[in-house]
Amino acid sequence: MRRYRCIISYDGTEFSGFQIQPQARTVQGELEKALKKIHKNEIIQVYGSGRTDATVHAVGQVIHFDTPLNIPAEKWGRALSANLPNDIVVQEVAEADADFHARFHVIRKEYRYRVLNRKVPDVFCRNYTYHFPQELNVQKMKEAAKVLLGTHDFTSFCSAGSPVVDKVRTIYELNIIQQDDELIFSIIGNGFLYNMVRIIVGTLLEAGTGKREVDEMKDLILAKDRTAAGKTAPGHGLYLWKVDYQ
Amino acid sequence: MRRYRCIISYDGTEFSGFQIQPQARTVQGELEKALKKIHKNEIIQVYGSGRTDATVHAVGQVIHFDTPLNIPAEKWGRALSANLPNDIVVQEVAEADADFHARFHVIRKEYRYRVLNRKVPDVFCRNYTYHFPQELNVQKMKEAAKVLLGTHDFTSFCSAGSPVVDKVRTIYELNIIQQDDELIFSIIGNGFLYNMVRIIVGTLLEAGTGKREVDEMKDLILAKDRTAAGKTAPGHGLYLWKVDYQ
Repeated sequence: MRRYRCIISYDGTEFSGFQIQPQARTVQGELEKALKKIHKNEIIQVYGSGRTDATVHAVGQVIHFDTPLNIPAEKWGRALSANLPNDIVVQEVAEADADFHARFHVIRKEYRYRVLNRKVPDVFCRNYTYHFPQELNVQKMKEAAKVLLGTHDFTSFCSAGSPVVDKVRTIYELNIIQQDDELIFSIIGNGFLYNMVRIIVGTLLEAGTGKREVDEMKDLILAKDRTAAGKTAPGHGLYLWKVDYQ
Repeated sequence: MRRYRCIISYDGTEFSGFQIQPQARTVQGELEKALKKIHKNEIIQVYGSGRTDATVHAVGQVIHFDTPLNIPAEKWGRALSANLPNDIVVQEVAEADADFHARFHVIRKEYRYRVLNRKVPDVFCRNYTYHFPQELNVQKMKEAAKVLLGTHDFTSFCSAGSPVVDKVRTIYELNIIQQDDELIFSIIGNGFLYNMVRIIVGTLLEAGTGKREVDEMKDLILAKDRTAAGKTAPGHGLYLWKVDYQ
């Protein structure tokens, strides 16, 4: 058996998320279907660095799988692509150590979130950026973002009902970049709770409109209460950007 | 009766083109459906500056319609948007002269065509740029493009079967801009034949790969024969960019 590690991109628009589900179109489902074809009906399980929700995109999702086939790494990309739908693109395939694990060995992840901040929507970006027409004070948003840096219990920024017990995570970087009419949030951390990035973005947008004060941010973290934070920003603005390993 | 002129954008991906057809989703069909709702079931006909084919996009398509309703121009945008699907966006609505005609009064149109020129496809652009992985000599393409400038009989660049008799058109500008991995063709002319821009792009790409020499371009025009020109580039890279009137 050989283990392969792949970097894949996908357009989340027409997926019910990454994780396989019966009766739904998922990224894992399509990957396993492609591998099953390549392996003449043998089932090959795919492990991702983590799930992404419906409509959420990935630029650099990482997966691994084991195979008995003797195909060199450089030919796997073509073999997979030929069997995948065109909303999944294989960027890189490399042989991995037998004990590499796409999920358990993650040390750092970067997510990005794109917001289109202008009155008129952009028809070509409607599935790729969150259209937010209200005026924003980006300076205030940057100040509020600073408060989130470092190690905190992020219970307030985790969707209620998540089974995860330890909600302490570290955010290494949280940058907001203005590019023409767009705001791009880049968030790098050692791990993320369910909907954490989308709740952070939703909360920072409220700091930008003046609905929420920068001073409140510290108490918001300390509250450890999801209802204290802002709305969950929609999935289609979110990108799993990069996953780093030991 | 008042006549309104609108600038609209649309993502052509899920349309069978601009022109209304029974049993197909079209831009004109959606516009007329929206107007019918606003007019309490009265049928209002929409006139566009010209048709676009299935999967072809528009940034600045122009349409006009007549209405008995007394709604100020600035409120029409919102009324239309509220009744349109989210792959059509109304950019501008203005009252027009009673004799303005979106199609007959056009003096100039700009089309753009986007080509992604790199090995790996971009999953987010698969419906918005034509992925062309072969290496291109852009200098040669620019030289070939120059030959097309000016007034010519463009029969070689018109899909066979077009009912148009006079195939003489004038191209004022034809620029090829390199932007990162992308080539953007901008073509401005007084009018365009059926598939003309897509055949021009397909032919210039052949000049870029070396399949066709720059010297052949003059003879290609003179041949007045569709089979002398290159392949028709796919629709999803094409944008109706801007329409100018007297």
